[in-house]
Amino acid sequence: MATMTMSATCAQPLAARKVRAAKRNVVTRAARDGPVIIGLAADSGCGKSTFMRRMTSLFGGKATPPEGGNPDSNTLISDTTTVLCLDDYHLNDRNGRKESGLTALNLKEQNFDLMYDQVKALKEGKAVEKPIYNHVTGVFDPAEKIESPDILILEGLHPFADERVRDMFDFKIYLDISDDVKFAWKIQRDMAERGHSLESIKASIEARKPDFDEFVDPQKQYSDVIIQVLPTQLIPDDNEGKILRVRMIMKEGVENFDAPYLFDEGSTISWIPCGRKLTCSYPGIKFFYGPDTFFGEEVSVLEMDGQFDKLEELIYVESHLSNTSTKFYGEITQQMLKYQNGPGSNNGTGLFQTLCGLKVRELYERISEKEVVAAA
Amino acid sequence: MATMTMSATCAQPLAARKVRAAKRNVVTRAARDGPVIIGLAADSGCGKSTFMRRMTSLFGGKATPPEGGNPDSNTLISDTTTVLCLDDYHLNDRNGRKESGLTALNLKEQNFDLMYDQVKALKEGKAVEKPIYNHVTGVFDPAEKIESPDILILEGLHPFADERVRDMFDFKIYLDISDDVKFAWKIQRDMAERGHSLESIKASIEARKPDFDEFVDPQKQYSDVIIQVLPTQLIPDDNEGKILRVRMIMKEGVENFDAPYLFDEGSTISWIPCGRKLTCSYPGIKFFYGPDTFFGEEVSVLEMDGQFDKLEELIYVESHLSNTSTKFYGEITQQMLKYQNGPGSNNGTGLFQTLCGLKVRELYERISEKEVVAAA
Repeated sequence: MATMTMSATCAQPLAARKVRAAKRNVVTRAARDGPVIIGLAADSGCGKSTFMRRMTSLFGGKATPPEGGNPDSNTLISDTTTVLCLDDYHLNDRNGRKESGLTALNLKEQNFDLMYDQVKALKEGKAVEKPIYNHVTGVFDPAEKIESPDILILEGLHPFADERVRDMFDFKIYLDISDDVKFAWKIQRDMAERGHSLESIKASIEARKPDFDEFVDPQKQYSDVIIQVLPTQLIPDDNEGKILRVRMIMKEGVENFDAPYLFDEGSTISWIPCGRKLTCSYPGIKFFYGPDTFFGEEVSVLEMDGQFDKLEELIYVESHLSNTSTKFYGEITQQMLKYQNGPGSNNGTGLFQTLCGLKVRELYERISEKEVVAAA
Repeated sequence: MATMTMSATCAQPLAARKVRAAKRNVVTRAARDGPVIIGLAADSGCGKSTFMRRMTSLFGGKATPPEGGNPDSNTLISDTTTVLCLDDYHLNDRNGRKESGLTALNLKEQNFDLMYDQVKALKEGKAVEKPIYNHVTGVFDPAEKIESPDILILEGLHPFADERVRDMFDFKIYLDISDDVKFAWKIQRDMAERGHSLESIKASIEARKPDFDEFVDPQKQYSDVIIQVLPTQLIPDDNEGKILRVRMIMKEGVENFDAPYLFDEGSTISWIPCGRKLTCSYPGIKFFYGPDTFFGEEVSVLEMDGQFDKLEELIYVESHLSNTSTKFYGEITQQMLKYQNGPGSNNGTGLFQTLCGLKVRELYERISEKEVVAAA
């Protein structure tokens, strides 16, 4: 009898889900030609490259700079994806910015006309000759040829600042690192590893902040998903920045995107998985899920505070998330393990970046009507 | 693809549940002869009779006083259940208590020897001649004959006070109404309906309290399930006592009882079902579930704050509870509707009393190896 009851409670949500599936944001028009275009906005030094590795690996094949090209190229190409770094569309090189007196964060230092022309051409299936901004030398190297890929990913400071470029994206992601966490990370890297002083780190962050707030931060409002990285709330007054609270803010009604959720879609839930069945080490793990508004628009928020210390914890959490777009049981765990040495692999940054990647894969499959074979 | 993911997330917990089922508190010995014995401890005027109606109705048939007997009998008999009121085991009648100077709450005013002898006899399948304490006249009426039933329910002030009686129960329930709520209820009934003054109500509660705390309250620690009724926390400083926060505290490791839970057994969860998919009227509904300790023992707590204003809300909540021991989808909702005019039918008291009834039905089926046909 106990089993009967369980089947009943399990079968019902399934049936309800099938009904709901009809209402989901699936666009059923014929497959579209040209690449699916994904944007990732984030500050420098915030783990964009880790994020990109997590995402491209879901499409199979290794992502490498263009073969036989400039070793300082910022481009990463795999079988189906091409990741372009928007720094290549800087208007001036380092000396030019010294003359203009503007930072690379300033919209006036971006060549949005060229960015627009080239993204449009790639979208139409044409190849382009894209500049290379050499981060080592600070000058532009000779252009490299970029073919139109299946999936075009644009990452950088300003993917959504220019309206013409913004409108070409199929999916827009913003990686939002809070000032407290940025500061903690910079201390870790620049003070502990590079010998900078606390004062010089503070000064460099303060100097950057006004332009960042004016030119980069406003793009959040145009994004479909914002991954916010904040200090933990599990340890009172923590300022180490080692344990993180990460929020995945997901806009409602985005085409071909159904937000992942915890237990019950649309309600408000907090969940501490650590308890009788799963033991966690201090300070534990806490999830939150619920509706909210963001820049006046309806969003769902999925939040994880704390970190995974044992594989068991990760599998347990994965098994309780819904709408994850995995292709087999345990795919999130497998993906997180693949990059277990990368930053954020044991916390919400890795989890939500992986989730984002899975959602992008599904979005690509829906738009292109092609199937991606899950990586073994 | 989305459907595939859903099946996977749904199928896994089911498989896991099957494994867990082996570890559950099912006693597999051969069916036992004699009645299954259930105890309900609670103060007078706290809704015991509603609770009893909810419970006996799950076993089918109408519960009525013994046919052709004393119309003032406190006993309720249906096809399978017999509910005895422990007031029948008072040692003295009303005049006798005036002489002794003790209240009916005092252990010295209970005839525990007779109670033990008669419960033991009923357990052994024998009929007894049980006294009737007449609540109208305050004296003992001639005894009534009670046959040994399939399910014997003992309700009253002191079911678990005497160790010999306590040890005979298969399941022990304590209905715990907090002082604030008792006071609010008494004001509603005695002041609004009977014209008593606020002062006299306060005085009567205060006069009762020391004996209640000394002789009734300590039985909580022996109970398998405690239903605690508290003022709501959804409205700051509410003292109306209309909206209630109700907690079902369930001891771990009770034979033939598997605690109901919300979403994920053994973890800590708070859930506000009201949101995008379900809208609720003010102040909404909030659930909590999690492990705790109670009198030094491991317990699970399931909590509901708020009330159901629409049928939809009740069905929605039912569909998200697990381990409820229902026999068909929607049985909790159907049961609550059956007594929709009874007190607590739209809040946690009705919900958890119904849940208790379903668990008792399952417990009876496991012990007796008989099947109860669900009421239509």
